[in-house]
Amino acid sequence: MNRLNEETIAKEKIFSGKIIDVYVEDVRLPNGENAKREVVKHPGAVAVIPITNEGKIVMVRQYRKALERQLVEIPAGKLEKGESPEITARRELEEETGYGCESLKHVISFYTSPGFADELVHLYLAEGLIKLENKASLDEDEFVEVLEVTLEEARKLIEEKEIYDAKTAYAVQYLTLKQLSEEI
Amino acid sequence: MNRLNEETIAKEKIFSGKIIDVYVEDVRLPNGENAKREVVKHPGAVAVIPITNEGKIVMVRQYRKALERQLVEIPAGKLEKGESPEITARRELEEETGYGCESLKHVISFYTSPGFADELVHLYLAEGLIKLENKASLDEDEFVEVLEVTLEEARKLIEEKEIYDAKTAYAVQYLTLKQLSEEI
Repeated sequence: MNRLNEETIAKEKIFSGKIIDVYVEDVRLPNGENAKREVVKHPGAVAVIPITNEGKIVMVRQYRKALERQLVEIPAGKLEKGESPEITARRELEEETGYGCESLKHVISFYTSPGFADELVHLYLAEGLIKLENKASLDEDEFVEVLEVTLEEARKLIEEKEIYDAKTAYAVQYLTLKQLSEEI
Repeated sequence: MNRLNEETIAKEKIFSGKIIDVYVEDVRLPNGENAKREVVKHPGAVAVIPITNEGKIVMVRQYRKALERQLVEIPAGKLEKGESPEITARRELEEETGYGCESLKHVISFYTSPGFADELVHLYLAEGLIKLENKASLDEDEFVEVLEVTLEEARKLIEEKEIYDAKTAYAVQYLTLKQLSEEI
């Protein structure tokens, strides 16, 4: 299956940012022709599905500049260099929601946009939530509003396009499937 | 909830590509401070879950330069300017797999990476597949290998990290949920 691979001939760094780097690469295609590929490099991220002891999902509403609108999402954040995804997951959960957790279970990892970016998201289920007395603080440029919703409310937020991103849609489907499996 | 919004003060175009444009924006935060946002603009995309009359899922294996590896994914492609997502979905299905379809149903749309990009993916379920005699041709820089897998095989491909992207993971979960709901 190596016949599908593309060999890099040249690579130009277009942009080096705080979160992303952008490259344009000249590649040799499987048929010997050349083409250009635009590639966004991202450090990767974690996302957490936090379930309260009452069975509610903790979510955060925040403004997303790329979309020029607010979204309701499960807590998430980018990986820091050298930090394990599990540590990042616990930190983001604390910073964004004020909850610690007794149990953190890896659900799945996936690339979000393989056509142009290498962002890999690690998704965790957090249970046994404990409200922390001294909430860890958010990054200085981060502003979120915490909400706790039932699974049914989350499905309604999808219909209303308040929940509108892949990881949160996946999380809602995951919980629906989990609930259904437990009923059988 | 406007208190979460970020106002654009300045916007610089860093890169204008074939697929993505990249901007750095200076924003005013809710607390009055300033910050920088890195934003990737993308035309949006469609993805199709094609189910054969034998109940198999049609997938494509392709090389993803951003990841420097091959992935197995459901057929997908970016929106052309002025083209409706449904037309794009039918075209991508034909080009990548050689199948037309009698029924195309919208499943969900979601942003893939709201933290830095505005890519919106529209996901469709395609049923009543018909093998086309004259297969539409792929883009000249596109090389894919078609495979047909059962739902169980797809779940195994997730475990093996051959399927490793958000839209395909969502699709597999969607079909699992659909199957389970039909059994109840």
